[in-house]
Amino acid sequence: MKQTRIKGVLAPVITPFRQDLTPDGKRFAAHCKWLLEQGVGGLAIFGTTSEANSLSVDERIVLFDELLAAGIPPARLMPGTGCSALTDSVRLTRHVVAGGAAGVLMLPPFYYKGVPEEGVYRNYAEIVERVGDQRLAIYLYHIPQVSQVLIPISLISRLISAYPTAIAGIKDSSGAPANLRALLDAFAGTGFDVFPGSELLLLEGLRHGGAGCITATGNVNPGAIVRLYDNWRTADADAMQAGLDAVRRAIQAFPMIPALKATLARCTGDDAWSRVRPPLVELSASEQVQLAGVLDALDFTMPGIAALA
Amino acid sequence: MKQTRIKGVLAPVITPFRQDLTPDGKRFAAHCKWLLEQGVGGLAIFGTTSEANSLSVDERIVLFDELLAAGIPPARLMPGTGCSALTDSVRLTRHVVAGGAAGVLMLPPFYYKGVPEEGVYRNYAEIVERVGDQRLAIYLYHIPQVSQVLIPISLISRLISAYPTAIAGIKDSSGAPANLRALLDAFAGTGFDVFPGSELLLLEGLRHGGAGCITATGNVNPGAIVRLYDNWRTADADAMQAGLDAVRRAIQAFPMIPALKATLARCTGDDAWSRVRPPLVELSASEQVQLAGVLDALDFTMPGIAALA
Repeated sequence: MKQTRIKGVLAPVITPFRQDLTPDGKRFAAHCKWLLEQGVGGLAIFGTTSEANSLSVDERIVLFDELLAAGIPPARLMPGTGCSALTDSVRLTRHVVAGGAAGVLMLPPFYYKGVPEEGVYRNYAEIVERVGDQRLAIYLYHIPQVSQVLIPISLISRLISAYPTAIAGIKDSSGAPANLRALLDAFAGTGFDVFPGSELLLLEGLRHGGAGCITATGNVNPGAIVRLYDNWRTADADAMQAGLDAVRRAIQAFPMIPALKATLARCTGDDAWSRVRPPLVELSASEQVQLAGVLDALDFTMPGIAALA
Repeated sequence: MKQTRIKGVLAPVITPFRQDLTPDGKRFAAHCKWLLEQGVGGLAIFGTTSEANSLSVDERIVLFDELLAAGIPPARLMPGTGCSALTDSVRLTRHVVAGGAAGVLMLPPFYYKGVPEEGVYRNYAEIVERVGDQRLAIYLYHIPQVSQVLIPISLISRLISAYPTAIAGIKDSSGAPANLRALLDAFAGTGFDVFPGSELLLLEGLRHGGAGCITATGNVNPGAIVRLYDNWRTADADAMQAGLDAVRRAIQAFPMIPALKATLARCTGDDAWSRVRPPLVELSASEQVQLAGVLDALDFTMPGIAALA
């Protein structure tokens, strides 16, 4: 029998690095624990925000195992497992499904551009067949501005028809309200869960049958985002959404991943958090000061985060 | 002491797959031998045309070792080793350099888009430092329409200053004559070799100090391309270029990689060559007939290739 579906607010967890740029499993687990304490529905480790594609498959497998060893419940995990190479996607997916992950968030192969929909279908179909595990729950990952590979409704419908138990949902990171709405109109209530890829569309999504959101800023502002998820039918919902939007816009005025890491470094007092792997570059000192100033003006805090340091 | 630089016409060798889509080292080595017999200067295995990013690093390492075991001289190899993850690029580069590869053709990390030039610099610098082998000769791989990451002259100059022996050249697959000319104006004669990424620009490149070309169609039309390289100062050069252009344009009217594989399948009589990994899709039966018709009208042949089957 399938375990309970992950819903709510998911954070694509940022990946801390040691000075030699090796992944730091200890800080990673500590941050995951804090996020769960803040009420997130799940942890979408190994996403775009996690710099997952800057890690080898082996590094991702080690980090996953370190989280389990640290006591993070696998039923709360939705690791990103879509790689450029079919064989890498299969290997990583098999590992996390065997480890009990509730689902996987799967990019299409992202090296080639302008590939036919048939080729993207075959990629997902091969993965389902090769993983061959009834527990597999795939959340398709639509992020055209990065992957440059589309996941249109026609493809989703074909995948659901072929693999009704394995195809569980989608993260729509297009940022386009019309695309989110088209997905919700097509799939809300069918058991195929639609998550917008940003809290900017959380309320809009929930009002039309969305399952929550999977959002980068969930790394630093999880409590407030969860509060809206829990209270979206109340009279305060629009005001809560406006509050989330202000924090999000402050952060995304900078390169998003370095800005999130700088924010965590500042709030924990632990500079190690600011490290990124190439090709990303950490915020400059002046950008850090600017960002801190804007967040302070919004009374932004990360409750309980100092205990992590 | 550094070995002789690879120059001339290089083929980014297509990768054959067995029915279960595992890489087929035997057919791969046979094709490499045929290409060398046709006079190519080198074999740019693991390129875009090779579907290299659809293979795991382990699969690439096994294929490389199989080529050496089959007697392909490593001094003729320029494997693609630039991955999305720094640690993958380092591991694969180390392996092929230790195996004696004359050079490596290195993509920038290609998952993130709009990354700062500083981040791309750090990627290459980290790889040079971590590989830490005096034999390392990196050819930068500029293919913005696929990687979406630019390799501008400012970045190249900075890399050459920092690592004068390790930074050996560039493949310019932009297809833009102005970009090729700017690279040649900046670097021809300096020891930094500039290869256009298509034979369409072979003669133009050679007339301004180019080192040859690294071209997908080198997989099927190597003899004629080598003939122009060997005779570019003759009166026939423009006519030879026009002949190459006609074959190239016939093939690139179709999706390039499946079209090359279909052509090799037809000329060898070995259908196995037509297989591609997702997300690519092989040519349809009617596309195959169309392509064959156009190539026949051009009297296109692959001399000696039937012996491969």
